[in-house]
Amino acid sequence: MLKRTHTCGEITADLDHQIVTINGWVDRVRNLGGVLFVTVRDRYGKIQVLFRPDDDALFSCAASLRGEDVVAVCGRVTRRPDTAIKEDTGGAVEIIAEKFEVLSKALTPPFYIHIESDVNEELRLTYRYLDLRRQRMQKNIQLRHQVVQAVRAYFNEHSFLEIETPILTKSTPEGARDFLVPSRLKPGKFYALPQSPQLFKQLLMVSGFDRYYQIARCFRDEDFRADRQPEFTQIDYEMSFVEQQDIMRVTEGILKTVFKNVLGITIPTPFTVMEYEAAMDLYGTDKPDLRYGLTFTDVTDICKDSAFEPVRNAIQNGGVLKGFRVPGAAPRYSRKMIEEMETLVKKAGAKGLLHAKTAKNPETGSALLLKTNFDKHLSPSEAENLIKAFALEENDLLFMVSGEKKTVNVALGVLRSEIAKRESLIPKDQFCFLWVVNFPMFSYSEEEQRYVAEHHPFTMPDLTELETHKNSDATKIHAHAYDVVLNGWEIGGGSVRIHSREVQKTVFSLLGIDESSQKSKFGFLLDAFQYGVPPHAGCAMGLDRLVAIIAGEEYIRDVIPFPKTTSGICQMTAAPSDVENEQLEKLSLKLIKDAR
Amino acid sequence: MLKRTHTCGEITADLDHQIVTINGWVDRVRNLGGVLFVTVRDRYGKIQVLFRPDDDALFSCAASLRGEDVVAVCGRVTRRPDTAIKEDTGGAVEIIAEKFEVLSKALTPPFYIHIESDVNEELRLTYRYLDLRRQRMQKNIQLRHQVVQAVRAYFNEHSFLEIETPILTKSTPEGARDFLVPSRLKPGKFYALPQSPQLFKQLLMVSGFDRYYQIARCFRDEDFRADRQPEFTQIDYEMSFVEQQDIMRVTEGILKTVFKNVLGITIPTPFTVMEYEAAMDLYGTDKPDLRYGLTFTDVTDICKDSAFEPVRNAIQNGGVLKGFRVPGAAPRYSRKMIEEMETLVKKAGAKGLLHAKTAKNPETGSALLLKTNFDKHLSPSEAENLIKAFALEENDLLFMVSGEKKTVNVALGVLRSEIAKRESLIPKDQFCFLWVVNFPMFSYSEEEQRYVAEHHPFTMPDLTELETHKNSDATKIHAHAYDVVLNGWEIGGGSVRIHSREVQKTVFSLLGIDESSQKSKFGFLLDAFQYGVPPHAGCAMGLDRLVAIIAGEEYIRDVIPFPKTTSGICQMTAAPSDVENEQLEKLSLKLIKDAR
Repeated sequence: MLKRTHTCGEITADLDHQIVTINGWVDRVRNLGGVLFVTVRDRYGKIQVLFRPDDDALFSCAASLRGEDVVAVCGRVTRRPDTAIKEDTGGAVEIIAEKFEVLSKALTPPFYIHIESDVNEELRLTYRYLDLRRQRMQKNIQLRHQVVQAVRAYFNEHSFLEIETPILTKSTPEGARDFLVPSRLKPGKFYALPQSPQLFKQLLMVSGFDRYYQIARCFRDEDFRADRQPEFTQIDYEMSFVEQQDIMRVTEGILKTVFKNVLGITIPTPFTVMEYEAAMDLYGTDKPDLRYGLTFTDVTDICKDSAFEPVRNAIQNGGVLKGFRVPGAAPRYSRKMIEEMETLVKKAGAKGLLHAKTAKNPETGSALLLKTNFDKHLSPSEAENLIKAFALEENDLLFMVSGEKKTVNVALGVLRSEIAKRESLIPKDQFCFLWVVNFPMFSYSEEEQRYVAEHHPFTMPDLTELETHKNSDATKIHAHAYDVVLNGWEIGGGSVRIHSREVQKTVFSLLGIDESSQKSKFGFLLDAFQYGVPPHAGCAMGLDRLVAIIAGEEYIRDVIPFPKTTSGICQMTAAPSDVENEQLEKLSLKLIKDAR
Repeated sequence: MLKRTHTCGEITADLDHQIVTINGWVDRVRNLGGVLFVTVRDRYGKIQVLFRPDDDALFSCAASLRGEDVVAVCGRVTRRPDTAIKEDTGGAVEIIAEKFEVLSKALTPPFYIHIESDVNEELRLTYRYLDLRRQRMQKNIQLRHQVVQAVRAYFNEHSFLEIETPILTKSTPEGARDFLVPSRLKPGKFYALPQSPQLFKQLLMVSGFDRYYQIARCFRDEDFRADRQPEFTQIDYEMSFVEQQDIMRVTEGILKTVFKNVLGITIPTPFTVMEYEAAMDLYGTDKPDLRYGLTFTDVTDICKDSAFEPVRNAIQNGGVLKGFRVPGAAPRYSRKMIEEMETLVKKAGAKGLLHAKTAKNPETGSALLLKTNFDKHLSPSEAENLIKAFALEENDLLFMVSGEKKTVNVALGVLRSEIAKRESLIPKDQFCFLWVVNFPMFSYSEEEQRYVAEHHPFTMPDLTELETHKNSDATKIHAHAYDVVLNGWEIGGGSVRIHSREVQKTVFSLLGIDESSQKSKFGFLLDAFQYGVPPHAGCAMGLDRLVAIIAGEEYIRDVIPFPKTTSGICQMTAAPSDVENEQLEKLSLKLIKDAR
């Protein structure tokens, strides 16, 4: 084998006149009759190779080259005529071939490798090894590498220890379903794959490791939605003798390092902090995208005596009327488009959508008219007050929803993000970070008829509120939990943890976990809490999403080397697949008939 | 909470007279009546805190402190009287307590934390969070962190990309049994946990990533032996456009970096290279410990006409007579001890053990006498030739085994390592690295009546030998495979990979994998090999073993934070455990009755 002396990316004008050998893939072949141009590609770049017709044997061999063949080429680096210079193929120089070797022949690939083109998703995943050869995926995977190294650099500089926790473990109660692994040596028993290293990292704090981190693989057996993966990667960390603020500073430090090292961008810290309640009220979500406005205004007071019955009733039943202004959008929204918006908010739980458009009063020529779909129920003073409250200007569009506050917030939140897309209000290459804090500790699940943990059962509640409300309304208890949000994505979340056996048991009880389940599921944690536990807190960030945002990708599967489809299938290897009955027997298992 | 201003390890004489706050565990309490000395410990060190009796409230509170309580102490750093200085507790200074807080009370732990002591293994694993608090485990886990960071530093400096491969995947054919994960969304189908990222890393080479690495979790469902874990961690790497030599240099680079960064030791490179055949002949193992001698000498020729029938027969049947000399050991080995040695070699497959001791000839006073357990069959010239062949001196002990060559080698290999232990020939803190190369590609399994791969089916065979022997005796084919050995442990191994579809199919066929299995199991790999494959090679090192050797630990479980027992149980969490029948039903599975 002609072994490379340089990568394709290293062939620059500095090497002019030198003999070099490169190894790589044929990116493109142009046969100009007398001369043959072959672009060779490797991970580090592209370089043009020129085959001259003087050497008949060499030339005719090279003429049979096809895209994606793997070649070794030896030749002399030469400056290209100025007119021919292209940035993506070595710039100022090319290689005049003297020797070459075909290391591996290629069939015509099922899609273009050397140029970007839209390729059917299933085809991409079936031939993932070819998809990964394309520039976009090469960039994404290299970016992921850089992000991970930046994260580690930060942790290592700050005395964190990277510690591995088990993959074959016990069920962790993060709310989702566990993947199970049958044990052969203990027939009838099962390991579970971890949904997160939560309990292990807390135990590492009990062990005195003080600062832990791990780039941890986690698993959730969920009904797959658009952009979920059964396995995902989490930047996981935990600290002892700290408070919420400390974890927030560390998280900001990680992200600052990532954006600096990877993109060369200095992100301002500390991040904005917003109460959960305020986020819901202003943006209708606990992960608002702050790259654009469209914040909500509560106009309940203005319309509390509205002649429009649905609004009046909603308010009299303790509900609200809220909405937001879309500046200058009135002329762009047809009746049909507004109907689409109404469908959207209804799907999100709202009963209907009120809208209004402003226009100059043709009579006065200055004052604004409010033209609504509930005109006949709107008094002039109400109209005037709404114009004031929303600071409406000419040609603005106003959306409002009435009803129970939470529903209104959520529905408006969905509408807000749709409008932002339609109005192109979302700037590219801008990164808006935000902390959302002071979450409720519990919500009440009507379905399960019990309290469920909003974060997880190991989150430290406000102890005063716990005492006050535990026997009346636990939803009033707040948690020392915090989410870090980037551009409308929750990229991470964490909490101060409970480090008292008694508090932990109280929380378990509130969640309906009885003494015997506490013992069988979490006995080892409660035991550990008897032997000297430091106050501790931690966080976990979703690596896949973080990388996707930085890469400008919409889907996390585009930053995961070998992802699964939305139904959990590896299109390339065809996993999951059948196994021999004998294998199942060894596990003391059999399939329920007709399963296959 | 009195939040720490310094870690315990940071309290040095530089801080003399300053007010500091520390957080940590009570390591030890000494109440000298009038004065109370409390040693506080954290990950970073220990410091002595002095409670003076002047402050009654403070003193009496402190007097109730017990070992492993978690405390916050605020006080003034003060020089200790010279006589009291102890290196392990802050050296020259102590803290005179002014304020303190108990952050968490501790029960008496089930074993000592603050001093090293032998603790029952099961107890250690049940209370792993306490075991990890002990100095030995703190050191081991920190060492592991350092090793991993050194490994990554090397890779990152050499343009390797860290790339994650799936945990939920398809069965990989590494010889051991796979752990299976039932799929709920595809009832009756199963994922497998990877035994190694082998095929994925090869596909990453097909994708053009050129240099890949991963600190990869791997899984094997084996019948547990003394020091195996169902999950283990592998330093996994692969390179394109390289030869065996390149991977060897990279591997040496990794290890050099690890030993330099972690232990400050410069290990000499390149490592010694030994042919597999030579290793077997000289040491009876493919992973010889070169820290001591006891190499074997073949004396078949000397005794081929031996009057001792078992030896003569063995040799006439194509066998050998080999042995090694144990210098000066003759007086130390009683008949009983030699019988123990014989039991050992018999267990390893040998028919018996010949031994001889040298002594001065009482008559001549100079020439050596050879006193054997087969004296009467030994001619004087044979004795003389053996003395010469083994370079025997006075009081030497000689062991010999006759029989089929492989059996003799293996049996002597086992004996050699036992003798080295008994004779204390193994130096501590010495690291002897070695490459073993030129392995056979296949061995023939009498049990399965077919060839099996000595490394794995993706290893590049010697292509000339493949052509010559594939239809006659495939065991004569060598593989481009290499193992790295440290102090008698195989710490890693790898190979040049097959990158031709045709060669791969030939190897599969030799292994008895028919066309249809090739397609169903490895179809995606064979497909990938059609689209331009770079020559590539790689290696994987066992992180757990490497860390154990560096830490001076015998068992890998002592360098794994949360290991399983030899029967695959997590003593702490009690995984694997029962699951609800409902969970199994969702997976379309049921237990074969009486399994539980």
